[in-house]
Amino acid sequence: MTRADRMFPADRITLREVGLRDGLQLVRQFPDTRAKQEWLQREYDAGVRYFELGSFLPAQRFPQFADVRDLIEAAGQLPGLRGAALVLNERGAVDALQTPIDELVFVLSATESHSQANTRRTRQAAVDLLRRIVQMRDDGGGAEGPLVTAGIAMAFGCSLEGSVDPDEVLRLVDACAEAGADVIALADTVGYAVPRAVATLVSQTRRRIGAIPVGLHLHDTRGMAIANATVALDEGVRLLDGSLGGLGGCPFAPGATGNIVFEDLVFLCENQGFNTGIDMEKLIQVREVVARSMPDEPLSGALAKAGLPRIGSQVAV
Amino acid sequence: MTRADRMFPADRITLREVGLRDGLQLVRQFPDTRAKQEWLQREYDAGVRYFELGSFLPAQRFPQFADVRDLIEAAGQLPGLRGAALVLNERGAVDALQTPIDELVFVLSATESHSQANTRRTRQAAVDLLRRIVQMRDDGGGAEGPLVTAGIAMAFGCSLEGSVDPDEVLRLVDACAEAGADVIALADTVGYAVPRAVATLVSQTRRRIGAIPVGLHLHDTRGMAIANATVALDEGVRLLDGSLGGLGGCPFAPGATGNIVFEDLVFLCENQGFNTGIDMEKLIQVREVVARSMPDEPLSGALAKAGLPRIGSQVAV
Repeated sequence: MTRADRMFPADRITLREVGLRDGLQLVRQFPDTRAKQEWLQREYDAGVRYFELGSFLPAQRFPQFADVRDLIEAAGQLPGLRGAALVLNERGAVDALQTPIDELVFVLSATESHSQANTRRTRQAAVDLLRRIVQMRDDGGGAEGPLVTAGIAMAFGCSLEGSVDPDEVLRLVDACAEAGADVIALADTVGYAVPRAVATLVSQTRRRIGAIPVGLHLHDTRGMAIANATVALDEGVRLLDGSLGGLGGCPFAPGATGNIVFEDLVFLCENQGFNTGIDMEKLIQVREVVARSMPDEPLSGALAKAGLPRIGSQVAV
Repeated sequence: MTRADRMFPADRITLREVGLRDGLQLVRQFPDTRAKQEWLQREYDAGVRYFELGSFLPAQRFPQFADVRDLIEAAGQLPGLRGAALVLNERGAVDALQTPIDELVFVLSATESHSQANTRRTRQAAVDLLRRIVQMRDDGGGAEGPLVTAGIAMAFGCSLEGSVDPDEVLRLVDACAEAGADVIALADTVGYAVPRAVATLVSQTRRRIGAIPVGLHLHDTRGMAIANATVALDEGVRLLDGSLGGLGGCPFAPGATGNIVFEDLVFLCENQGFNTGIDMEKLIQVREVVARSMPDEPLSGALAKAGLPRIGSQVAV
């Protein structure tokens, strides 16, 4: 049993709240460190135990992540909390490895065009960099160091190339596994995924990489995210991202929904028979922190709007 | 093969746009007859062939349906268009049977409390009335008369009773079949349905009533509608309702989404491998008619907000 297997047991659901990272990736207005800590603490009190906390990126260009070390420190005070942070280059990995972060997320692009446009490197160079990051982790803490997750962006469709050949994604999955990724996450970065495509790619990926946990990072741009999560659960995926209020919309589609709404995802999982350990009422109330610190940012979420079903118990079955 | 089977072939998808009826059920502001005719004509031009056109209800209390006969006449001018209308009592059925409507939809409640509160009759009395409506249809046009659809409201949860016992729904399904319903539709009137509940009830219903087509009427109050439609398609349901822009919100949940968004449902079906015959771009443009004639009504829909994926073809696969 690998360390990643122990952290993501196949018989349990693991939900990661990525609002503090992906939700803030493209915003101009963002919460200060204190508001972020309240966000973290209140979700923790609601039962959330797994967060993407920020990015190791140049603070001049991404001031919203300048306090990533403070967040990692705050997260370290909360027992059982697991924190991940994004790294996009060697420098970021060096910095991240000096913190007690639990997981590094390194993102590669499914298509050559997007890889070049987004990071000025080929997919092969990205795989080589992933391998170096794993090596740096091993040279440092070894078994005690953070997990390294490979996130494959544009896995279900690309903003530049349009449709994406699943076989190309699977080749990249193989390469990431070979490079030593502990977890591989498929990301529907621009919301092109539909249930049939998710079922196919997820089952092929799981068959392909065997014991390595497969995560799914969905966006709700075209309203398919909850349906996509449903079929992924049916296909055995147990590791899913979501962001509070669906934060993380695309600047090229004003008004469009961003990430799958974490609250709605929790509701889905509970009703599909998984125990998330998360208190929906408390979780929904954390939206106040976002509303207060990012008043211009639209918040999505059906549960927050409509309220929980009045069924006596927490959720409808 | 029954007449309903010929109208709803099991190897094809049949989508019904219910905005002109369910979408207007609770509104104060509504389109005039001319705007409704434009709505109908433009959706017809987009490829939609099946509509709920209105209700046979007292015009004083429901002025939004006073022109139902005009709509039925307008629909009759469009080759291949099928129109349904709601009837809730004998008087409505008498009136409807004097028109060339293709289908009467009679709604019963899954729970005794809601049946009493909504129509002041027991569920048994409702089944008896359904039987009389079928008889009236047979006495009139017979095989040439309209289909009679039994819609079971609150089938997945009730605004008054909370959770609903699926066995009670199945007993009502049996009773409706025995009373002569040509089609039986399960309605998630208040948006309590979740994928697992839909899969279970739909498969049990289909097993139970054999050859009678099973329809599904979903609301998106808690964001589960597209996921629910996905599992229903997987379970063999081929008859689904939706309303343009998700019109038909509940007055008790301000801002909450109403019916499943027809545009998003079409997108789902196309991407799950069904040919709907509907042009998404044209369909989305029909929202203009609603926006113009009901400017205060919020319109939902991810596709309309984000646009179709840029994949060259009409839809992403």
